[in-house]
Amino acid sequence: MSTEVAHIAFDPAAFRWAGVVEQGYKVAPGQEPADGARGMGWKGVTRHVLAGTPILQAAFEARFFEVAPGGYSRLEKHRHVHFVIGMRGCGRALIGDRMHGIPPFDALHVPPLAPHRWLNEGEEPFGFLCIVDAERDRPQPLDDAEWELLRADPLTAPYVF
Amino acid sequence: MSTEVAHIAFDPAAFRWAGVVEQGYKVAPGQEPADGARGMGWKGVTRHVLAGTPILQAAFEARFFEVAPGGYSRLEKHRHVHFVIGMRGCGRALIGDRMHGIPPFDALHVPPLAPHRWLNEGEEPFGFLCIVDAERDRPQPLDDAEWELLRADPLTAPYVF
Repeated sequence: MSTEVAHIAFDPAAFRWAGVVEQGYKVAPGQEPADGARGMGWKGVTRHVLAGTPILQAAFEARFFEVAPGGYSRLEKHRHVHFVIGMRGCGRALIGDRMHGIPPFDALHVPPLAPHRWLNEGEEPFGFLCIVDAERDRPQPLDDAEWELLRADPLTAPYVF
Repeated sequence: MSTEVAHIAFDPAAFRWAGVVEQGYKVAPGQEPADGARGMGWKGVTRHVLAGTPILQAAFEARFFEVAPGGYSRLEKHRHVHFVIGMRGCGRALIGDRMHGIPPFDALHVPPLAPHRWLNEGEEPFGFLCIVDAERDRPQPLDDAEWELLRADPLTAPYVF
């Protein structure tokens, strides 16, 4: 725990924060779903932790994720919820059984166990802030029924792989 | 608790979110410090709750605050921490014993019991996202020693009232 005021300066040209390390999408091997599981492929995603234990003594963590053009996150679900707010570029997401366009500052609540995948079909990076509980469950793959349902809908099928 | 995906559309022209009610700075009379206490004056501040119980079942709440030109929040402290990220305009803040300039996307951690006041000395609205624990203590006024220390420093004195 820190009792210091942290002021994390933003660099608009780089769209990065001073002193915040760019991490890969996968950072906690013991807490990740198995690589081989269905839907666990991902591409061009980086993670930037702006607030989290033990630096900030809070019940939440704040992370900035950036998805490069053509990139996508895992197709996964978990009991913990996401609060997401777009910050850069225009992204898309499969959440539950629908597609969402995400221009800057649109906000989304991803409810418990809703399948979701973040995507960038644009030409500039798609960045978003994602707030989660500090104590949270491990992401898991979709079950057969969820997978087949999303594969059967022509709107979501292209994103189910 | 909702299990629905909430997609809260942002209106860039108005800098507001569809369906999110603009509230006054004071919304919970039983949870507010007494009006008469030292430093509890405020001006031109609105609150917009983007995520909070019971709508989102999480350990945190996400609020957007906007401070009008010339406006300021209470000078207060509390045990719960703030994660703040600038979103609109350039603000200033007294946090702990120092002043901070806050351009868009600068991020700050306000540690436990650090006195703080958000200010807008600019000509356009200053808006920021503020994440807090859902369960948190009530803000309280500064004690005599804190008040006098900040009044004795010419850099912070103008903001201690």
